[in-house]
Amino acid sequence: MRKVDPVKHEQKRGEILGAAIRCFIRDGFRGASTTDICTEAGISPGHLYHYFPSKVAIIEAMIDLGLARSAEKFEKILAAPDVIEALLVDIEETSLRFRPAQILNLDGLAEAARNPEFAEIIERHTSAVRRMWSDFLRQAQDRGRVDPGLDPDATANILIALVDGSRAMPIRNPKLDIKQSVEHLRTMLVRFLNPPDAQSAAIKPRIQKTGRPLKLVRKR
Amino acid sequence: MRKVDPVKHEQKRGEILGAAIRCFIRDGFRGASTTDICTEAGISPGHLYHYFPSKVAIIEAMIDLGLARSAEKFEKILAAPDVIEALLVDIEETSLRFRPAQILNLDGLAEAARNPEFAEIIERHTSAVRRMWSDFLRQAQDRGRVDPGLDPDATANILIALVDGSRAMPIRNPKLDIKQSVEHLRTMLVRFLNPPDAQSAAIKPRIQKTGRPLKLVRKR
Repeated sequence: MRKVDPVKHEQKRGEILGAAIRCFIRDGFRGASTTDICTEAGISPGHLYHYFPSKVAIIEAMIDLGLARSAEKFEKILAAPDVIEALLVDIEETSLRFRPAQILNLDGLAEAARNPEFAEIIERHTSAVRRMWSDFLRQAQDRGRVDPGLDPDATANILIALVDGSRAMPIRNPKLDIKQSVEHLRTMLVRFLNPPDAQSAAIKPRIQKTGRPLKLVRKR
Repeated sequence: MRKVDPVKHEQKRGEILGAAIRCFIRDGFRGASTTDICTEAGISPGHLYHYFPSKVAIIEAMIDLGLARSAEKFEKILAAPDVIEALLVDIEETSLRFRPAQILNLDGLAEAARNPEFAEIIERHTSAVRRMWSDFLRQAQDRGRVDPGLDPDATANILIALVDGSRAMPIRNPKLDIKQSVEHLRTMLVRFLNPPDAQSAAIKPRIQKTGRPLKLVRKR
């Protein structure tokens, strides 16, 4: 039996994953075959199976990588001094400015609706992200920063839906006004989340004076 | 040359379109071939080309049909006594309760990001729907029902993104609480769109008394 160098093995897995992602972006999860992935990675099918037992295993590894990255990203967003602003910067950079990787999110959702194995992966990913958001929302409610009348899980689901929907915006509107879109998303999020006290006190004068939406009001 | 009966021709086109939609739901726009569509429709490839010159022509006809239906639907929503409620009923019925046809919307967006021909169709569709929404929003602003500080086109884009995102909700959350999701979407939309006057006057007492979000306030 051949001796496996664990560092080289990990490196090769990473290379194959990169090749698979390029194939999936080009041809979709359904359209890209393991043969295509092997060609792109410059390896034989027999060689592939030393690293990944199946196409689903590649997709799972890809989603695990994506989940680790998005956990890291959300930790950063949720630790920012202004969480709404940090979320908007992320939506602007990764959703409203189109990047090919966005195709994978749309494709992944469509494929989850077709394939139970895939659905299970997406569901697991979603519940991890939802938990991060709802923990944050609960803490923000305790500190009087977010309307206590909102259910944290239901609100988290809507924030995730909004990120999903914002990914479609540059596809639907190639000439999207990104700055204006961010401003309107900010207005919607702030009005949605702010406690009613802050809304009645703060929305009217700020909007009317400057035409700019307010920031999430903080109690200090 | 064979004489074409226009009624029969239309009927056959409709049948082929139905077969194509089943194939696209099952295998995606990229995965389903014209051969698959012919098999599903029970016709020969030569026969297909009497009705549609290409796969793209089938997809265009499908989107035109979808556009006509959604124009009809939005006309109805925008003529309803409470537009936000009518929109929420539609989101509940056609997005939050999963239907296989939703796959086509997600797939269509992913494919538009890959294929310029497809992108042009989606862009055309989006601008027609956006125009309907922004015309409505402008009228509602004139009547004092919607915040005049919001840009009608930017707001319409966000409403469309919200519908796109809500389609992903039942896929991401198979046990989605539909009633609670609709209530939170209602809160978000009403708070986003209401004029600042109505927000400061109406949100606080209504939310606190009943725990239910307010309806879009009307000036009569």
